[in-house]
Amino acid sequence: MDVVEYRPERSEYVYTFGGAAPVREVAPGTVLRLWCEDAFNGALTTVDDLASANLRIGFLNPQTGPFAVRGAEPGDTLVLHLVDLTPARGQGASTLVPFFGGLTGTDRTALLQDALEERTWIYEVDTARRTVTFSARRSDLSIDLPLAPMLGTVGVAPAMGEVRSSLTPDAFGGNMDTPEMRAGATCYLPVNTPGAIFSVGDGHYRQGEGEACGTAVEGAMDVTLIVDLIKADQAPAPLWPRLENDDEIVVVGSSRPLEDAWRISQVEMISWLGGLLGLDRLDAYQLLTQTALAPLANVVDTNYSAVTKVSKTLVPGLRPYDGLHADLRSRAASLT
Amino acid sequence: MDVVEYRPERSEYVYTFGGAAPVREVAPGTVLRLWCEDAFNGALTTVDDLASANLRIGFLNPQTGPFAVRGAEPGDTLVLHLVDLTPARGQGASTLVPFFGGLTGTDRTALLQDALEERTWIYEVDTARRTVTFSARRSDLSIDLPLAPMLGTVGVAPAMGEVRSSLTPDAFGGNMDTPEMRAGATCYLPVNTPGAIFSVGDGHYRQGEGEACGTAVEGAMDVTLIVDLIKADQAPAPLWPRLENDDEIVVVGSSRPLEDAWRISQVEMISWLGGLLGLDRLDAYQLLTQTALAPLANVVDTNYSAVTKVSKTLVPGLRPYDGLHADLRSRAASLT
Amino acid sequence: MDVVEYRPERSEYVYTFGGAAPVREVAPGTVLRLWCEDAFNGALTTVDDLASANLRIGFLNPQTGPFAVRGAEPGDTLVLHLVDLTPARGQGASTLVPFFGGLTGTDRTALLQDALEERTWIYEVDTARRTVTFSARRSDLSIDLPLAPMLGTVGVAPAMGEVRSSLTPDAFGGNMDTPEMRAGATCYLPVNTPGAIFSVGDGHYRQGEGEACGTAVEGAMDVTLIVDLIKADQAPAPLWPRLENDDEIVVVGSSRPLEDAWRISQVEMISWLGGLLGLDRLDAYQLLTQTALAPLANVVDTNYSAVTKVSKTLVPGLRPYDGLHADLRSRAASLT
Amino acid sequence: MDVVEYRPERSEYVYTFGGAAPVREVAPGTVLRLWCEDAFNGALTTVDDLASANLRIGFLNPQTGPFAVRGAEPGDTLVLHLVDLTPARGQGASTLVPFFGGLTGTDRTALLQDALEERTWIYEVDTARRTVTFSARRSDLSIDLPLAPMLGTVGVAPAMGEVRSSLTPDAFGGNMDTPEMRAGATCYLPVNTPGAIFSVGDGHYRQGEGEACGTAVEGAMDVTLIVDLIKADQAPAPLWPRLENDDEIVVVGSSRPLEDAWRISQVEMISWLGGLLGLDRLDAYQLLTQTALAPLANVVDTNYSAVTKVSKTLVPGLRPYDGLHADLRSRAASLT
Repeated sequence: MDVVEYRPERSEYVYTFGGAAPVREVAPGTVLRLWCEDAFNGALTTVDDLASANLRIGFLNPQTGPFAVRGAEPGDTLVLHLVDLTPARGQGASTLVPFFGGLTGTDRTALLQDALEERTWIYEVDTARRTVTFSARRSDLSIDLPLAPMLGTVGVAPAMGEVRSSLTPDAFGGNMDTPEMRAGATCYLPVNTPGAIFSVGDGHYRQGEGEACGTAVEGAMDVTLIVDLIKADQAPAPLWPRLENDDEIVVVGSSRPLEDAWRISQVEMISWLGGLLGLDRLDAYQLLTQTALAPLANVVDTNYSAVTKVSKTLVPGLRPYDGLHADLRSRAASLT
Repeated sequence: MDVVEYRPERSEYVYTFGGAAPVREVAPGTVLRLWCEDAFNGALTTVDDLASANLRIGFLNPQTGPFAVRGAEPGDTLVLHLVDLTPARGQGASTLVPFFGGLTGTDRTALLQDALEERTWIYEVDTARRTVTFSARRSDLSIDLPLAPMLGTVGVAPAMGEVRSSLTPDAFGGNMDTPEMRAGATCYLPVNTPGAIFSVGDGHYRQGEGEACGTAVEGAMDVTLIVDLIKADQAPAPLWPRLENDDEIVVVGSSRPLEDAWRISQVEMISWLGGLLGLDRLDAYQLLTQTALAPLANVVDTNYSAVTKVSKTLVPGLRPYDGLHADLRSRAASLT
Repeated sequence: MDVVEYRPERSEYVYTFGGAAPVREVAPGTVLRLWCEDAFNGALTTVDDLASANLRIGFLNPQTGPFAVRGAEPGDTLVLHLVDLTPARGQGASTLVPFFGGLTGTDRTALLQDALEERTWIYEVDTARRTVTFSARRSDLSIDLPLAPMLGTVGVAPAMGEVRSSLTPDAFGGNMDTPEMRAGATCYLPVNTPGAIFSVGDGHYRQGEGEACGTAVEGAMDVTLIVDLIKADQAPAPLWPRLENDDEIVVVGSSRPLEDAWRISQVEMISWLGGLLGLDRLDAYQLLTQTALAPLANVVDTNYSAVTKVSKTLVPGLRPYDGLHADLRSRAASLT
Repeated sequence: MDVVEYRPERSEYVYTFGGAAPVREVAPGTVLRLWCEDAFNGALTTVDDLASANLRIGFLNPQTGPFAVRGAEPGDTLVLHLVDLTPARGQGASTLVPFFGGLTGTDRTALLQDALEERTWIYEVDTARRTVTFSARRSDLSIDLPLAPMLGTVGVAPAMGEVRSSLTPDAFGGNMDTPEMRAGATCYLPVNTPGAIFSVGDGHYRQGEGEACGTAVEGAMDVTLIVDLIKADQAPAPLWPRLENDDEIVVVGSSRPLEDAWRISQVEMISWLGGLLGLDRLDAYQLLTQTALAPLANVVDTNYSAVTKVSKTLVPGLRPYDGLHADLRSRAASLT
């Protein structure tokens, strides 16, 4: 397998999906070894670094990339298999950004109340024990939490010539902020433009579902992934991001209000299930109703993201794309 | 322990929270052995029994009860520990009700499209193997799914003299439709009226998160539960329903749009966590952000219900109400 | 015409739709002359009377009634023609209630921010000039605004045995808070229970659309109205509250999120237009699209209310219920 | 005044805000005489031209422009005064696009129901009588409606390097679809990029509030407007689009759910009112509550748009930007 390594200079990060020239063209099958800066551009290193004084609007969620995929055309499906996510620094940070987050008024849920107090938390990483440590700021409580690395942001250039901030999740992927985007997962995204033009970023050392305060345990990440491509004549592109891991198939819908994000993920899963199992739409609706898990991803970004998952154990026969995921797992195993 | 058995006659079911006289008064500590009819009032027994021809508006979600709890006063916390949920029939049913469900227009999301086709599914219960079987209606596919009994509906009389349909979830509990309401769980509800006046019903043999099509595998249920009471001077009543099991503490919020249901469950959990761990509001917000699970309960009822859960393993020190849940588990164990 | 006068004692107000025994039974055709207390129960008389110190939860929006209408049966349409609304006091009040209103977090849009500062405004009524005067509290600005009396709350007992707080708007009417509920308007409501069991209250001396801060210029009101009844065999009951004045036909939808309130009002108007003009559903949808006005009513109550209006001038032929509104206007004219 | 005329060739239309090179640079004070194609790119000319067969995704809402404004810098306010809007063709069209519109499931409110039947309506323009004629498709009813020309779409390049489809309304203006965008109105938009880079399009011969079916009476338009600029040091840029006409000041908010669009427009109006009248935030909130009108603009686009208006008659002293609107009205009058 071809292996491409890329660690961007500070000036090389991009902050949009679409609208930037690719830094590399890679062939399907390529292994990428990438370095991803954290969502704060590394600006929060102590608990005294508050958001409003240290973060620059327009320079959040730096993306590593974009990469062009050789031969990718609109209608194809971009496949990104996450081989490994390893924290690239010894600490992560989370912070309260004024008027940002799920439990405060925002620029959209526009209210008259004062902003919440600003506060920053620093999480120490213990690589050996694979923990990050929560330390309360107004008490002595500290709790070691399991390290659970994921990428908040994986996406392609949007359709219709749009360019979207790297803070946005939508049909093109983007800032979905779901813990499902972890090592061992395969992500399927629709290709909207020649080359697909994808990027990744926004490492989280761990995150709860919903990402309530607006920021996870944000941290720089070493990312290894395999790029692949499904041509349109092999399978139609998904309408919304799909994920697969050894245990489940997963769809992520992103919109507002939150019920629409959920509806999107459910309808896309019904299409997927129906295709895999030979069920008509209503039988798939029924099977979904009794088997799906529906964890939230984020309720804080410019669109909210909701996840629908179905277990391969619970529902036999879920082997999408001719077993491509298993094949990617094998390829990944050969890397180490 | 006092044990009260109650199996209502058809005419004895109630269809509201509030507005009905209690059928029994029970003392805290009483064990109730109850029979609960299914949400369809037993009307769907074959796949040819469609909703519009067989279901009667106003007579859905029959409740067993209500029960008055001796000594319960507004400001107290009603405690219901679910000891055992056993399917009371050999089959369950799920159906598509016209203009009801998460992926169709409804009386609220009022649209001009035609209703979905009606269709009913019957699930056979295999008690020995503990499965219910999905049988597709337009193909030969059938899948054995694990039996996972739960109660869709547990609630008390609402505040401010309101009487609400048993189809509604809200601060009083009610039709929350969360899989967390299973055997082994302890439910904490605010008492709004003298006696609390609670009822239970809506057995589900299993259900996915979200209950997408509007109906789970609905089935009559034998229910054993222990009633208890926490007086206001021991602990303040929760604002919204709380649950506890051996592994997690759980809050259920219900409202529309769905993000508000989620916000409710998150804010109530922040209060709970803060109290248990001695964290101020923002530290609890932060800890929640990195540790909470947020599975949906229902996106189909008159209010949507969202769940926030925190793991006792992940976050040490979560021992609410002086260990009452463990005590109830012991009492439950002594019953068998 | 029979004329019934009723001015409740303090203890006679009710705070729910449904759940209270009627204070009078009246025949269709009866004129009611009523006194309505303000939404604050008269508790705010100076700018120093703040909400949290003076308002009692559960005793807001006192209703005058309920009245039973002789012969009213489920399926009929209750008709209430507002003849006259006259402020019954020399001043009105508006106030900020903590965590209530459209531009603050609430019990439903549950957030972590502090409540807005409390503040009360008193509006002096000038009967001769027909004005109420806004006086800023933190500057010297005062503005005379036109008196525009309306009733925030008009409703019947809900369906399915529910009892709802008088703070709630829904299909039964209730706390819709629309400026369309003014003298000269005829209100059509579905009858859900024998006798219809309706009440009115919540006088506003004026209100903007949306009622942003949560409270209008609230004031006690002398109300004159004519009660009438359309039997089910003459016309089907509306699904949602309809209004008619000399210039327009109007529908009020109430739900959350706000788009659902709007959808409800639009779909009900399509039914109404289609019936009046002999249009099929899609032609009525099209005509509505190009002619409807859509002012908001409230974005603050337990459900939000949205209005759809069509002008009788713009769209000829809108003469619902065989010209009943014109007949009621004639009857009203004969009263003075 | 400099006058610039511009009638694009078919190939010169653009379909985004941002992302296109300006076709002209104009100085503040310039009069633009523009020709705008209709939203369907002129593809629907008979009732037999249905949407799915004739409309091309990605080529809807063609924009005339974009224009660069000399000297415009981020932080400035772009001023566009609409002098004249005259229908450029003898007929307009409206149509039902599958899965688009306010009373159907969509790509976002993703449901399983079948699409509504497709149908197109053609409206004949009578220039002399200033009417457009609705002709029902399934009955003989036809109604002459007043011509009420407006522009659905007026916007600048978005902030943060985004490029948005011309179907989207947001803080940069865009596809707001409000009837307030009519001749005689002055529009104030925030400048996000050097030159502002604005475009206009989407002529409507008339439209109801909400634009329920998704399309107004769409028609090509001759547009005359005056471009002006307020530098940042004279006045801060608005956060959201503002409008002013002889009678009212107006704000348009765009987001989802609809209550957030309304909240945005209300909070921006509170800032505006507060600044103009010297009121603190809560006094402005109160005054707004009792005086604002809140008509909907669209409940169909990728964001919904809600309008907040305050009457200059009702509230004396509303003379924003030193009377610039009156000055522009004078300049406009001199043009004819």
